[in-house]
Amino acid sequence: MGELPIRQGRAGGRGARRALREAPDFAMLPALHRGLPTCEIMDPEHVARIDAASMAILEDVGVIFRDPIALADWKRVGADVRGERVHLDRALVRQLISTIPSSWTYRARNPEKSLPFGGKNAIFVPMTGAPFLRDLDDVRRWPTLNDLAMFHKLAHMSPALHSTAHHIVEPMDKVVAHRHLHITYSSMKHSDKTFMGMTTSGKNAEDVMTMCEILFGRDVMETTPVTTGNCNGNSPLVWDETMLSAMRAFCSRNQPVLCSPFVLGGANTPASVAPAVAQLNAEALSALAYTQVIRKGCPAIYGHYLSTVSMKSGAPMAGTPEISLMNFMIGQMARFYNVPWRTSNLLGGAKTFDAQAGYESAMTMNAVLHAGANYIWHSAGWNEAGMHCSVAKFVVDAEMCAMGYRMAEGPRWDDFDVAMQAVRDVGPGGHYLGHPHTLENFERAFFMPKMFDNNSIEQWQAEGSVEITARALEHAKKLLGDYEEPRLDAGIDEALRDFIARREREIPAVDALNTEH
Amino acid sequence: MGELPIRQGRAGGRGARRALREAPDFAMLPALHRGLPTCEIMDPEHVARIDAASMAILEDVGVIFRDPIALADWKRVGADVRGERVHLDRALVRQLISTIPSSWTYRARNPEKSLPFGGKNAIFVPMTGAPFLRDLDDVRRWPTLNDLAMFHKLAHMSPALHSTAHHIVEPMDKVVAHRHLHITYSSMKHSDKTFMGMTTSGKNAEDVMTMCEILFGRDVMETTPVTTGNCNGNSPLVWDETMLSAMRAFCSRNQPVLCSPFVLGGANTPASVAPAVAQLNAEALSALAYTQVIRKGCPAIYGHYLSTVSMKSGAPMAGTPEISLMNFMIGQMARFYNVPWRTSNLLGGAKTFDAQAGYESAMTMNAVLHAGANYIWHSAGWNEAGMHCSVAKFVVDAEMCAMGYRMAEGPRWDDFDVAMQAVRDVGPGGHYLGHPHTLENFERAFFMPKMFDNNSIEQWQAEGSVEITARALEHAKKLLGDYEEPRLDAGIDEALRDFIARREREIPAVDALNTEH
Repeated sequence: MGELPIRQGRAGGRGARRALREAPDFAMLPALHRGLPTCEIMDPEHVARIDAASMAILEDVGVIFRDPIALADWKRVGADVRGERVHLDRALVRQLISTIPSSWTYRARNPEKSLPFGGKNAIFVPMTGAPFLRDLDDVRRWPTLNDLAMFHKLAHMSPALHSTAHHIVEPMDKVVAHRHLHITYSSMKHSDKTFMGMTTSGKNAEDVMTMCEILFGRDVMETTPVTTGNCNGNSPLVWDETMLSAMRAFCSRNQPVLCSPFVLGGANTPASVAPAVAQLNAEALSALAYTQVIRKGCPAIYGHYLSTVSMKSGAPMAGTPEISLMNFMIGQMARFYNVPWRTSNLLGGAKTFDAQAGYESAMTMNAVLHAGANYIWHSAGWNEAGMHCSVAKFVVDAEMCAMGYRMAEGPRWDDFDVAMQAVRDVGPGGHYLGHPHTLENFERAFFMPKMFDNNSIEQWQAEGSVEITARALEHAKKLLGDYEEPRLDAGIDEALRDFIARREREIPAVDALNTEH
Repeated sequence: MGELPIRQGRAGGRGARRALREAPDFAMLPALHRGLPTCEIMDPEHVARIDAASMAILEDVGVIFRDPIALADWKRVGADVRGERVHLDRALVRQLISTIPSSWTYRARNPEKSLPFGGKNAIFVPMTGAPFLRDLDDVRRWPTLNDLAMFHKLAHMSPALHSTAHHIVEPMDKVVAHRHLHITYSSMKHSDKTFMGMTTSGKNAEDVMTMCEILFGRDVMETTPVTTGNCNGNSPLVWDETMLSAMRAFCSRNQPVLCSPFVLGGANTPASVAPAVAQLNAEALSALAYTQVIRKGCPAIYGHYLSTVSMKSGAPMAGTPEISLMNFMIGQMARFYNVPWRTSNLLGGAKTFDAQAGYESAMTMNAVLHAGANYIWHSAGWNEAGMHCSVAKFVVDAEMCAMGYRMAEGPRWDDFDVAMQAVRDVGPGGHYLGHPHTLENFERAFFMPKMFDNNSIEQWQAEGSVEITARALEHAKKLLGDYEEPRLDAGIDEALRDFIARREREIPAVDALNTEH
């Protein structure tokens, strides 16, 4: 039930408060420290039942690791390897995951933006991976590196976003083989917040690690996470060489990855909530255990991507009740294993930024916050099942994260007695608008969203009957006009550019995904 | 963690399931029986602190009852009455509220639609009170009695709506003085679900009670709630004669009212979450206590209406984080007093059915469900801060209630072992689409919203690029085409019509609110 974080200098009287209120405020919020209790939808017996079922899968069914190095690694630590299928004894799994840290601090290149992580601490990270964008004119088209830079700038300026992530949109004007270099540089250059690292292949991940070493220094990385990779599993029960080699690049340098089974509920899991969680849990555990085979004690994050599949059309769905339930349950499992966990936030399946997108997104955010997730990914821009990132939705989602942040902090209690005196002062039938407690507290008392119009219809019509998409795009343009690039050391900048130039010469510009060089 | 309610007769093979899936299904869901745990944002010490502060307000500041009968009643039971201000000793308050039942069964005219209520049981009730509608063509205009009938029909056909409420929209083509008669008749006639009773004056409430007696019989009402009234408080700390006289009409006949302080957070409460809840709690307790002065043991519901006020514009706001927090806290207080409680659901402040409306509405619904509310009012149609009821939003909200219902039930566990066998059958790298467990369970496994489009953009474009508003209006038209009026006994129908005709002769057609006759 912590205090609300209010910067110093706000107590300078009404005039000062008004001036500050009018000024744009891009200061990043600290990592969310949760006051909201977690939603424990399962009794301890249910948690034990999921755990036992997952462990039985790992022992009896096994997991396919389509990767010779991983298979050799597993043999080395005594797992039962039969062909590509690895059978993992529950004692071995428990022993391995026991060395995953339960919390750490993410280092940002601006130390003021470093972030405590795990336990009650959580961070919001924008969406990534969209092959299309809806741009500043709401036109759906292929993105460029400039579009990616735009999203990195917007993430930099959004107080509740703690990271710029990586390829928010795919820069289609760069060949696939070189893309990871430009994406990483854009994250590093346009913001001093933390960011994610590309895992499109082992070699690409190595390049990202090298760029992080240039930015932070190898010694720092040996003790401190500076970025995060994502490794998707192929449900049911398969991990492939691309993901595993990227995992090795990150974990061997002590950098965390999200171990993310990719769930299309009903298609690649059983058509039932609890059994789907049991399968996903087995998959996540197998990858979490492997991170510790790579490097004992390295940080790692229990991940997943969740959608349910329409059994009428085969389409993935967002914001459905089962996704909420699975989030609550996965949170309980991650806490049971004492490992930080990742989820996806504010997901929409709508083709435009219509009411469907709003409902689905807010359903997801509430699930995530009540579930107590730590790494809250895809927190801005996601629509059309991830096929596009919308500029309009991005800035609204960023404000939704600020609202979710406020809710998840819980109420303040420090002014309780003073405010109860106000009740006595005002008395029955009075009003509070002029009371000193109101004047002193109104700015932080009740969140006032910029992106939501709460005026009367008459005023709204007088202002041109503007719906949220147009309001949000206008706001995004204004934000970009106010953008100031955070200073990056000139020597580091040059070293990063030199590295990119060298790798572009070394890597053939073949336009195919996952090219290994 | 109950089973999902599946009607009998669905186990008739794939063909039968498909036929049923294509057929419209208007069967009402049972009252929601919660599996979702309640969000306990306050420690017991915080609950005690709110309780103590509220009791101190009732003792020291007092509450204004602007009503001579209520003042006389309070004197009779030993309260400290000074002018219009009633000071309530905490022992008296605790003694009075202790006789409020913690649960009961609502009787509907179709006994199959009667509803257990209170404790873990909750019901969804549509919005009421809108002076405008957005109609089947999305045109914003004044409503008529025919429009009200349309909404009553839609509520009747929505499985997750358990009530038709009362004046969902105001029938502007009826004079105010006669309106309560036509509203009540429309609720009774167009659906056999439960409904709400008008409380626009004491005499109007008496007319509603008489109509309920015609429909259910006086003896039934003596033992069983058949309707619900709403009594708004004037925060801070005032109850007026209109509301109190309506309260007496309901409570004296053993019918429950919602005791609803009307909170504009920051304007008529302190600008802080916990103190606002303490004031609201005092107000609710004073009215709940008065229900038991009227009739000891009569059912009553802890109510409230919550919005926060923009300190920039004075506008009320919906879906803000503080509204979520206050819902969690009010739920805890109601459970502390062991009284069922009411909240408001799916509220929007947008002028059209845009993404803002979606975000705000889903924020509200999640707060309400995690807070554990029993009487979940305003569950369909509310936009523009209640100034209009939208047909499009009504049918989408009704489906959202069905999704919220599914989430709040919690996961099923009855198929866990069978599904874990499916994991073994499918194995790593397989898929579940053809597995018998999937075929047997997919219909109830994952909610498939009708109102949300999850198809590819190519398919969506091929189908005309229809956004949710147009989809929802088309669905509403189809529903209305399929509507069948539930049978009402001809003698009762005639008696109701005779009563209305008589009262229309007796009550002058003066077009003013709260006319007392």
